[in-house]
Amino acid sequence: MSITLSVDAMGGDHAPDIVIHGLSKTHIRHPDVRFQLYGIKEVIVPLLKQYPQLDNKSDIIHCSDVVAMDAKPSQIIRRSKETSLWQAVGALLENKADAIISAGNTGALMAIAKLRLRMIDPVDRPAIASLWPTMTGETIVMDMGANTMADPKNLLDFCLMGTEYARIIFDNKKPKIGLLNVGSEETKGHEIIKEADSLFKEYQNIYQYHYHGFVEGNDIAKGIVDVVVTDGFTGNVALKTAEGTAKLIGHYLKSSLTSHPLGKLGAWIAQKPLKAFKEKINPSRVNGGALLGVNGIVVKSHGGTDHIGFAAASELAIDLAKGNILEAISQKIHQHEVIKK
Amino acid sequence: MSITLSVDAMGGDHAPDIVIHGLSKTHIRHPDVRFQLYGIKEVIVPLLKQYPQLDNKSDIIHCSDVVAMDAKPSQIIRRSKETSLWQAVGALLENKADAIISAGNTGALMAIAKLRLRMIDPVDRPAIASLWPTMTGETIVMDMGANTMADPKNLLDFCLMGTEYARIIFDNKKPKIGLLNVGSEETKGHEIIKEADSLFKEYQNIYQYHYHGFVEGNDIAKGIVDVVVTDGFTGNVALKTAEGTAKLIGHYLKSSLTSHPLGKLGAWIAQKPLKAFKEKINPSRVNGGALLGVNGIVVKSHGGTDHIGFAAASELAIDLAKGNILEAISQKIHQHEVIKK
Repeated sequence: MSITLSVDAMGGDHAPDIVIHGLSKTHIRHPDVRFQLYGIKEVIVPLLKQYPQLDNKSDIIHCSDVVAMDAKPSQIIRRSKETSLWQAVGALLENKADAIISAGNTGALMAIAKLRLRMIDPVDRPAIASLWPTMTGETIVMDMGANTMADPKNLLDFCLMGTEYARIIFDNKKPKIGLLNVGSEETKGHEIIKEADSLFKEYQNIYQYHYHGFVEGNDIAKGIVDVVVTDGFTGNVALKTAEGTAKLIGHYLKSSLTSHPLGKLGAWIAQKPLKAFKEKINPSRVNGGALLGVNGIVVKSHGGTDHIGFAAASELAIDLAKGNILEAISQKIHQHEVIKK
Repeated sequence: MSITLSVDAMGGDHAPDIVIHGLSKTHIRHPDVRFQLYGIKEVIVPLLKQYPQLDNKSDIIHCSDVVAMDAKPSQIIRRSKETSLWQAVGALLENKADAIISAGNTGALMAIAKLRLRMIDPVDRPAIASLWPTMTGETIVMDMGANTMADPKNLLDFCLMGTEYARIIFDNKKPKIGLLNVGSEETKGHEIIKEADSLFKEYQNIYQYHYHGFVEGNDIAKGIVDVVVTDGFTGNVALKTAEGTAKLIGHYLKSSLTSHPLGKLGAWIAQKPLKAFKEKINPSRVNGGALLGVNGIVVKSHGGTDHIGFAAASELAIDLAKGNILEAISQKIHQHEVIKK
């Protein structure tokens, strides 16, 4: 199957430069994939000329407008028909592409994806699923901020979508699911969490996932489950807190080493493994959140990412298109609806 | 003023050993402070004998029972009169001590403190305030898990209590307050956050704090504000996620260095600064959360802490007693009540 990726070439703090640069890397690893680049033609053409191989696999679709990174959702819908984001999402509707990627405004991407692609019935709310590096590999954490609130039914939807996502990403038939809470004891947490806990238990045999129970913030990086389910407010704060902590520790390490002559010498000798370490904690490496729950494969890249991060996110979109995530989720979720009735 | 610290000598995963060992450190830095040790006498006496100087400053008050670390709140209140925790909190009621510290069951400490000491009128809910290491020093983050839900009025109470706490801890007359959210733009977040944002703006001149606005998870470690206000669910997840991230990065660093011969050599040469780095990211260093909102100075140490962590937490309790945090908070909060009327 030949995959076509629809790209919002203008979305992101450093777009379109890092977008085109990133796709040139993606192209090397996925030479069969085609790209549809939505954006301002005059700006994209000279960038694309630097990568003739990528150019061969790409079509530019000119769009006169761009969604600002700080635009409000209400403004976006009103005047978005000419934007690269609106058009790039539209490519999925017309079957011109198999997945869409954007590093632009998250609220706008969600609003446009929901409006144009519509939700998979009966999912009420989409969720952003991210990969989180752990002691043992990677864990899916969702929702990372598509919604600021979630009721028990939403959390169950996230659990089912996360299960399908884990099956594809980790090639694991029966993924282990954890529900994020302030303690692992059954008595912990508020009512929404307790009700979701009951639902997760109730559905684990039908949907073939293994429900581990509550997990705490420090359990995420331990990698004890394949999927950590939480509401978008908590998930977003947790992700950003982890990023901030990683930066702080990098800063501490650097200042400890440079403030001592033996530290400087040791760091100079160990520069190669220290560079590997720096690479390992680079958040770009695991960039890319899948917007699950809409009728289409939509991947959100971090707005401030570099070309490596954009390449990682676009490869995720390609993997999800190849893995047929959409069909897997809608089949499962429909089964959920049937059971509910 | 001579300070007496009431100590739940039996609370914590490694109590009473690390408690007595920790207090021996505290005693060296605060030789004028007296200690009231609540717990099983036969166990405490031989430990205390190892530190004659501390022994001189300590009274043991025998309690026949101990609150289990995993006991449920309902069980605790029913059978807690003979526990070290119940008795240690009681010392504040009888003016036998100026502050109480426990590394025991958080739920039990909160329940007993609320029941015995009562809330500062009109605060509805207590909050745990912790110190968080940052690029520029430390930031107070609260609530770290006293409650799993908070309404806008609760968040305003946390803001006012956090302001007084920052004034004492940082000796800063007009602390900078941030409200934790999923984005810094005004349109972000759910209704509770938006209402709290309005309240924080409304009260900043009256209560003499500087309201910075929304902050994101990654802003905590940047140290851009003195106090980060959030509900206890989010705060607890953020804290534990940061701890988990720190461990993961330590693990990555170690494996990067040990998997390469030059890494091993460099690490050996830089062992002194690397040890300083390890010390710096040790969570024990900033152990100790103040339970604000109750009529008494109550400090919670991490249950799994070591003697260094317990010493840090007990020194925090002493500082708060010396700084008269209780009077500062109740005066401010009463002013809040007067304005509301």
